[in-house]
Amino acid sequence: MTTSAADHATILLRTAEAVLHFTGEPSSTALAEQLVRRIDAADEAVITAFLRHLLERFGPDEARLKAAVDAWQATPNAETAQALGDAAEASRQELFRVMNTAPGGIGCLLSLRTAAVQRRADHPELRPVERDLEHLLRSWFNRGFLELRRLDWETPAHILEKLIEYEAVHEISGWHDLRRRLEEDRRSFGFFHPSLPGEPIIFVEVALTSGMSRSIQNVLAPRDPAMTSVPDTAIFYSITNCQTGLRGISFGNFLIKQVTALLRAELPELETFATLSPIPGFGRWLADAEPAIDTSDQAAMERACARYLCVERRHGRPLDPVARFHLRNGARVERINWKGDTSAKGMAESHGLLVNYRYSGQDLEANHEALENDGVVIAAPEIIALLDDPGSVAAEPPPAG
Amino acid sequence: MTTSAADHATILLRTAEAVLHFTGEPSSTALAEQLVRRIDAADEAVITAFLRHLLERFGPDEARLKAAVDAWQATPNAETAQALGDAAEASRQELFRVMNTAPGGIGCLLSLRTAAVQRRADHPELRPVERDLEHLLRSWFNRGFLELRRLDWETPAHILEKLIEYEAVHEISGWHDLRRRLEEDRRSFGFFHPSLPGEPIIFVEVALTSGMSRSIQNVLAPRDPAMTSVPDTAIFYSITNCQTGLRGISFGNFLIKQVTALLRAELPELETFATLSPIPGFGRWLADAEPAIDTSDQAAMERACARYLCVERRHGRPLDPVARFHLRNGARVERINWKGDTSAKGMAESHGLLVNYRYSGQDLEANHEALENDGVVIAAPEIIALLDDPGSVAAEPPPAG
Amino acid sequence: MTTSAADHATILLRTAEAVLHFTGEPSSTALAEQLVRRIDAADEAVITAFLRHLLERFGPDEARLKAAVDAWQATPNAETAQALGDAAEASRQELFRVMNTAPGGIGCLLSLRTAAVQRRADHPELRPVERDLEHLLRSWFNRGFLELRRLDWETPAHILEKLIEYEAVHEISGWHDLRRRLEEDRRSFGFFHPSLPGEPIIFVEVALTSGMSRSIQNVLAPRDPAMTSVPDTAIFYSITNCQTGLRGISFGNFLIKQVTALLRAELPELETFATLSPIPGFGRWLADAEPAIDTSDQAAMERACARYLCVERRHGRPLDPVARFHLRNGARVERINWKGDTSAKGMAESHGLLVNYRYSGQDLEANHEALENDGVVIAAPEIIALLDDPGSVAAEPPPAG
Amino acid sequence: MTTSAADHATILLRTAEAVLHFTGEPSSTALAEQLVRRIDAADEAVITAFLRHLLERFGPDEARLKAAVDAWQATPNAETAQALGDAAEASRQELFRVMNTAPGGIGCLLSLRTAAVQRRADHPELRPVERDLEHLLRSWFNRGFLELRRLDWETPAHILEKLIEYEAVHEISGWHDLRRRLEEDRRSFGFFHPSLPGEPIIFVEVALTSGMSRSIQNVLAPRDPAMTSVPDTAIFYSITNCQTGLRGISFGNFLIKQVTALLRAELPELETFATLSPIPGFGRWLADAEPAIDTSDQAAMERACARYLCVERRHGRPLDPVARFHLRNGARVERINWKGDTSAKGMAESHGLLVNYRYSGQDLEANHEALENDGVVIAAPEIIALLDDPGSVAAEPPPAG
Repeated sequence: MTTSAADHATILLRTAEAVLHFTGEPSSTALAEQLVRRIDAADEAVITAFLRHLLERFGPDEARLKAAVDAWQATPNAETAQALGDAAEASRQELFRVMNTAPGGIGCLLSLRTAAVQRRADHPELRPVERDLEHLLRSWFNRGFLELRRLDWETPAHILEKLIEYEAVHEISGWHDLRRRLEEDRRSFGFFHPSLPGEPIIFVEVALTSGMSRSIQNVLAPRDPAMTSVPDTAIFYSITNCQTGLRGISFGNFLIKQVTALLRAELPELETFATLSPIPGFGRWLADAEPAIDTSDQAAMERACARYLCVERRHGRPLDPVARFHLRNGARVERINWKGDTSAKGMAESHGLLVNYRYSGQDLEANHEALENDGVVIAAPEIIALLDDPGSVAAEPPPAG
Repeated sequence: MTTSAADHATILLRTAEAVLHFTGEPSSTALAEQLVRRIDAADEAVITAFLRHLLERFGPDEARLKAAVDAWQATPNAETAQALGDAAEASRQELFRVMNTAPGGIGCLLSLRTAAVQRRADHPELRPVERDLEHLLRSWFNRGFLELRRLDWETPAHILEKLIEYEAVHEISGWHDLRRRLEEDRRSFGFFHPSLPGEPIIFVEVALTSGMSRSIQNVLAPRDPAMTSVPDTAIFYSITNCQTGLRGISFGNFLIKQVTALLRAELPELETFATLSPIPGFGRWLADAEPAIDTSDQAAMERACARYLCVERRHGRPLDPVARFHLRNGARVERINWKGDTSAKGMAESHGLLVNYRYSGQDLEANHEALENDGVVIAAPEIIALLDDPGSVAAEPPPAG
Repeated sequence: MTTSAADHATILLRTAEAVLHFTGEPSSTALAEQLVRRIDAADEAVITAFLRHLLERFGPDEARLKAAVDAWQATPNAETAQALGDAAEASRQELFRVMNTAPGGIGCLLSLRTAAVQRRADHPELRPVERDLEHLLRSWFNRGFLELRRLDWETPAHILEKLIEYEAVHEISGWHDLRRRLEEDRRSFGFFHPSLPGEPIIFVEVALTSGMSRSIQNVLAPRDPAMTSVPDTAIFYSITNCQTGLRGISFGNFLIKQVTALLRAELPELETFATLSPIPGFGRWLADAEPAIDTSDQAAMERACARYLCVERRHGRPLDPVARFHLRNGARVERINWKGDTSAKGMAESHGLLVNYRYSGQDLEANHEALENDGVVIAAPEIIALLDDPGSVAAEPPPAG
Repeated sequence: MTTSAADHATILLRTAEAVLHFTGEPSSTALAEQLVRRIDAADEAVITAFLRHLLERFGPDEARLKAAVDAWQATPNAETAQALGDAAEASRQELFRVMNTAPGGIGCLLSLRTAAVQRRADHPELRPVERDLEHLLRSWFNRGFLELRRLDWETPAHILEKLIEYEAVHEISGWHDLRRRLEEDRRSFGFFHPSLPGEPIIFVEVALTSGMSRSIQNVLAPRDPAMTSVPDTAIFYSITNCQTGLRGISFGNFLIKQVTALLRAELPELETFATLSPIPGFGRWLADAEPAIDTSDQAAMERACARYLCVERRHGRPLDPVARFHLRNGARVERINWKGDTSAKGMAESHGLLVNYRYSGQDLEANHEALENDGVVIAAPEIIALLDDPGSVAAEPPPAG
């Protein structure tokens, strides 16, 4: 006789209740270990039911919360506000903290968050559970706890294998392809958490080149042994967030900043730091905005792309998610590259166009402020020249004041 | 011209405001680094003033909190409760999280909490700041993130030096004394946090002996090279919490549990796990309770001590803090040792008496439950025989039911 | 204008002379670095010419040697014999020792020996140089200096890549194949030298199986997830010497011995330790010895193979090099496996036959002595039953006496 | 009944014979382990007897040696010379190589050499054994196999303890003194062998100072926290060879060279590299050479010292062993320091005088050549001015040619 998903979920519920009941006592860790093992072994239906239990059975204590609200309303001060915050905390938060004391606990919590993220559309009611997990994970994966590691051919294979698995921008076709990305004229770095030493959180791939690369085909081509020129440019050509369980928690800006600093120290001859980036929303936007455009007309396509990247906005910010990320970091739109990515994915996504965003140390702050405060996107003059109406685009940030 | 403490604290305040203003932006980390450096360099008066700024200027947003209270009262559900919790969170919590991204950030936050703890008596108003720091540190120093390390003569000197500095139970008089405590018939283990690799959080010292040690003098005496008997007992003779900044966050029970498991695996011949513990409150209690007792009367003193350890309570729990800790862990009172610690400290504190608490794997749970649920202290029959009225003391936990 | 190989070799010669001239002086290391770099960059013709210089210009000092011979003949004692040994040492030995002080020196010396080994047939006159290198390397790669490392999926990729490159018995077809060989039911171990941390000296591959494997196809097949039986047998199915520069220096017996001890400690449930070994000389021998045999006649082929493995000898030792290695280690011939290796290589080499040699801890010594002292090969009764004339083959070693 | 030393030594002899008998066979390592353990446990008398066995029973095979001599005399060529060298090798060399395969083998061989060195005076007949050990150890402790490690306060305590134990120039009075020598304005480095990870081979202590230190009292004084000037000078104030078993094998010049390179890279602001060195032979020499000198006459003493250091020679080299070492390395005599070492040892040895030898990168080679080829000691003009007859002393090396 098989136990149904509901029964399974009830076992998880009872174990979770026991964990909380014995918090701080000798048996709580053993119970937490049991809970973690059971969650790890549960199937999708059980997880859905358990997430619902977490929502319904592990909220805040309502009476205590009501009392705290009353107390704060009677005497609103630092202490009653703090007590109110404590009372409003769902008891699942404490459950999660105890689960973390078990071996594999952190991985289990990441899995639960992943499950909750994947159920956003079908089970929007689970959102509070997901947000509690996010809150906790955001705190625990604080940048201060992450370790930056260089990834190269001396990295253990089980970690390199993850790069192949996770790479989201330009697929790694196998170990041969991976090895090329880790040769002497390439760099890769990732953030790792001490409790998950074999799991990259995010990683970046960098090409050291002479001049700013125009196409991903060149970046991924076999190394030319005849090429002996000293690189003057670092091209960030791929950034991949690895953990769905950390969705919404931003690591990329820290990573770019720290890798840039490292490369500057190691290779003082580097003059330019730029990306070679996809434009994931361009194709879809173009189909709507200019359905009749001749997609083989290079000039027209570049104009359309410049407009999409710099002018089109939502809430004042660039429409394209990758543009948004780099421009908010203070980069500028530097160059649009025709046939930058001729892979099927690149053609489908953005008709083969790629864009360079340039990170110029001394300008990052001012560029960022221009966008955030004034809604001004900073772009190279060549880009601006492509725009019919460069109203909210400038080659330099407005003077502070 | 020197800047006054108030001016200094204002600089800290402005820096902290800037950190929060730029959260998530390129410049926030640089600002956080500045803040950390400035706090580290500040004197006591500046810290006091800055803690007050943290209290007054970095609370929750009152309007937002009021709106969240209203929303929850109108529609009390998981989402409004969660929003209420978010709104009640003081903004200093976010400040602390950003500070942690700076090098040395975690150490700075521990220092701030230490400063707040030290001001409990003189500045009780700072308690909400202290509690926010405690909340965060409790989450970050979750047992799941700590690493258990053996400490021995191959441990780096800068860590061993800390053992000498921190040891709180039986002072380590120097490197010679330390080395004896790390010889082959001794063990020491500590918990460490990955972000503070050179700082023990807590450590324990263990003697491997034949039979249960009766005196700390014997434990600390030079090793007898003639002694070749195989040890059958592990004596935990010192447990030291090292970080004032983590006051109130319990690590000792985890440490004892894990060290016991390690020693069992390494040395299967060990039969008995027990402590040789101080009785820090006995002297003071005795002066009140039996001021006329002849302190050289061994039998009378042991009777008084048994009563103090087992019978005297506050809120149903043992009066003595060390007794409370071990008995709540499920240990039992095993033996009272006359002249167990003849040092000046030992005589002053407890007239030289020490006590063995015994950790017996299979009984810990039941002993713990007996104390927590029924208020029954578990003690060896020899201890019970010393009591006039052993009402709430038993040799075995009552049968479950 | 290009410099000829002879000129290049002369430059090497002059540098080598300078190295020796300045031995022990500040500049010798810099000169040795130069020499190493130049040798590493030299082509095959230059190396040949340089090896000849090493032979002709870096021998012993003849006058000194003659004087030492005279002295020993006049007064043959420990001191004159030692002085004679010193005088007979070719000066290239000292050159090699100084070369080792340069970065990459040990690798350069391995390359020189490799070059000399490869020239054995065409340049037998270089043999004294090769033997001097062998003498030195044998001393430096003394087993006491080697480190045994487990090789698994957490091993750095640049080392795993070498396994793929070096594997000499059953080719590793790529990373997928390699990964299978490193799964939980497999083990791999290698010896490494501290000065060559990325270079395996020798490695072994082991399958943990239920019962003694009969075919390499099964060993290399994808793991059967349904297979949950606890393994009782360790099958050493591949042993590869990686360094031509260490040709003739034996590591395999040490490796088998130590890996066996490690596996026994890790997996006490293992009962049988055996190999699944190729029979590299069988095909060639069979073509000579029984040219008319029907190679599809399983019984006839097994009889022929048993005879080849056990009865055929050179200098009293088994003809087959792999048999010789394992039998001298004290293993016994346990089973001949029809269709044990159906790969092209396996069919060509030994008509697909493989053999299990069994390592039985308590018998190794006696088996070894039986072979070495009495010329008796130890084999399982089933093997002996295949022999027409088992004169020098026995199921057990003769009683000592 | 106790076994006599002779019987004990006979057991060692028999074990050693068995080791050699089974070389390369399964049992040789087990026998070597036994031998090593027995030697480690043997007392001085047994060791003396065993060394004699090594001399008498483990020489070369005389018949083989005689045949090899005959063959070489008949046909003197590379092969017969090599065979002669092989035949002249004492069989104890092979014994030592097999001993090294046992755990602790290398340590045991160092102990044997130490024992032989200590018996030089009383047992000169053991010299061939000692020289065989030296030959082997010199090859195994080749600079290319040694690892340079920084020694600081993060070094494991069991290694730091060895610094205290071994320091031979300026005694380390305890952990407090040691710690001062490892502070931020001090450096220490040592060579280690991979097979003896806890044993320094040699170590050097360096002070980073403003200007060239004149006295060891200043170097060892507590750090002046007010001193904030950036150091421009590295003073090597102590170099200690740690292993008597490596007596006669030179590591110091390599260590100075490599540490100088490391410090230059870490601290580009360093301009001067010099020693503050003892003059161990000065006192004894002075008593002979100028018995009537007034040892409180600073000027007379400095003149005498300059003469002793620069003019007095044996075989053309400086008389003083420390002077000989540094001057052969290419340093120059820079300054004589009155009251440089006022400790009892310093006063007894050299009436408190210390000397700075200066290492000037570009001059080392030429200075070295001047001494070795022309017998010219290089010294500062101030030193030369102290000499009555500076015949073989110069401020600069003679021009090459």
